[in-house]
Amino acid sequence: MNYHQKFDAYRNLVEEWLKERITVPELPEKTLFEAMRYSLTAGGKRLRPVLSLAVCDMLGGDREAVMPFACAVELIHTYSLIHDDLPCMDNDDYRRGKPTNHKVFGEAMALLAGDALLNTACEIMLEAVLADEKDALRKAAAARLIMEAAGASGMIAGQVIDMESEQTAVSYDQLCRMHSLKTGALIRASILSAALICGADERTTQALERYGKLIGLAFQIKDDLLDVEGDAAVLGKSTGSDVRNHKSTFVTLLGTDKAKELLKSTVEEAVKALEGLQNTDFLIHTAAYIAERKK
Amino acid sequence: MNYHQKFDAYRNLVEEWLKERITVPELPEKTLFEAMRYSLTAGGKRLRPVLSLAVCDMLGGDREAVMPFACAVELIHTYSLIHDDLPCMDNDDYRRGKPTNHKVFGEAMALLAGDALLNTACEIMLEAVLADEKDALRKAAAARLIMEAAGASGMIAGQVIDMESEQTAVSYDQLCRMHSLKTGALIRASILSAALICGADERTTQALERYGKLIGLAFQIKDDLLDVEGDAAVLGKSTGSDVRNHKSTFVTLLGTDKAKELLKSTVEEAVKALEGLQNTDFLIHTAAYIAERKK
Repeated sequence: MNYHQKFDAYRNLVEEWLKERITVPELPEKTLFEAMRYSLTAGGKRLRPVLSLAVCDMLGGDREAVMPFACAVELIHTYSLIHDDLPCMDNDDYRRGKPTNHKVFGEAMALLAGDALLNTACEIMLEAVLADEKDALRKAAAARLIMEAAGASGMIAGQVIDMESEQTAVSYDQLCRMHSLKTGALIRASILSAALICGADERTTQALERYGKLIGLAFQIKDDLLDVEGDAAVLGKSTGSDVRNHKSTFVTLLGTDKAKELLKSTVEEAVKALEGLQNTDFLIHTAAYIAERKK
Repeated sequence: MNYHQKFDAYRNLVEEWLKERITVPELPEKTLFEAMRYSLTAGGKRLRPVLSLAVCDMLGGDREAVMPFACAVELIHTYSLIHDDLPCMDNDDYRRGKPTNHKVFGEAMALLAGDALLNTACEIMLEAVLADEKDALRKAAAARLIMEAAGASGMIAGQVIDMESEQTAVSYDQLCRMHSLKTGALIRASILSAALICGADERTTQALERYGKLIGLAFQIKDDLLDVEGDAAVLGKSTGSDVRNHKSTFVTLLGTDKAKELLKSTVEEAVKALEGLQNTDFLIHTAAYIAERKK
């Protein structure tokens, strides 16, 4: 299997698990579950859970043990997109080429579907904690790591900074901190929670932490470049929104050429962070994929 | 100490714990924490965490072990109120006599503060799970019980049913199911999570479950009566909104007199559910308090 086949194989495992876990019961409140499922199956890349599974394989860990946490991160990511798209936030009508959740189900249902996805992520992780006494503490620590990354000291803090920095000049350091929280925290958590569950040693954990930090940064630089140079049809959303909204990005701050240089060196550093570890092929390719992706 | 002094003593313990735990750090995103704190300290009754502590004392349990879970339920309750008040939901300007969260901080911040409170509730519980290896599994089970009560099979399902049943005729059974999910689930969870952590036996747990179910119902009947007969100044919000919004309530379905009878018999049944248990004074008084409260 080449890299893309392997990525798709991981992705399929994730899709299957999510499809089995997030069902639509025949209850008066079934629309809630339809709304949750709509966004959860709206064609996400599944980068975060794929990273979790890849780290698990790299460390020779138990995929079944890691899977609930990998998918919990994807649920959290999905809830954050639904809430982000709401009229009171970014007011986006399209996401991944499809109408956003509130465009289909209305604002109130979208709000509640987001809440329910975050809540379900916790339920899934707690179930996993309780499933096997032996691994309970390790898994509880992984759940805590993920929830910290998602919360007021992580992703949500990043969203607040992003929101409050609109229309104002932002320094390079501020931009890095914002993205490290808003996008980076959950990417790092998907890697480190898997490492924790698989019992990675201190040195491996540190290397993976550095790798996660760097691919998180690379991911964001690429996002900013795609908003300028990307193909709206492939992206499934309109481009140029950063400029229209006067948002500070790596491109507006550095210019396109410098941003591309930074992307290249960041990916190189991410690969370097893995030096000395075994079975790093997939993670190395993922760093490159992040920089080359078209969407 | 009489009942009200004891209630206030529990309440003060909760206030102190929350004040120490939910602080406002000097960070660019400090407004998020201010928004979280604003609603968390806006004068709630603290009924749910008080119930947790009372059950803990009744069972001779460890208050420190129960406290994080008691307060997590209060955080979840608070987030649900913030989201409920948003323009896309009930669009309320006042709550407990103060402007609602989005009136003070704007819709986007209120949305994120709600998200962050739910997230923080999980973080607090997971910290408690990891704090003491001996009790970890019991606490993880309590956390799962609380999150299930809060989620798509509990409180959020109730909100969806409530939302979708506006402007339509609702049967008595549908009304009971809706409230059992929307308000009841979290009240039951505050009681049962404490019982679980304190190692209550099967018989005690069943009695408490029945008690919790009944006071949850009583709480809602009283809420509906207060909307008709309550004092807006004492309640801190306008009355008559159920009639204005054509909402089915116990009062619109049964009439005031029958609703009062049902409230009385429900409280009596709740008290009866505790027969045979020890140290039930506080819980008996609480059932009466729920029926007599002015707000």
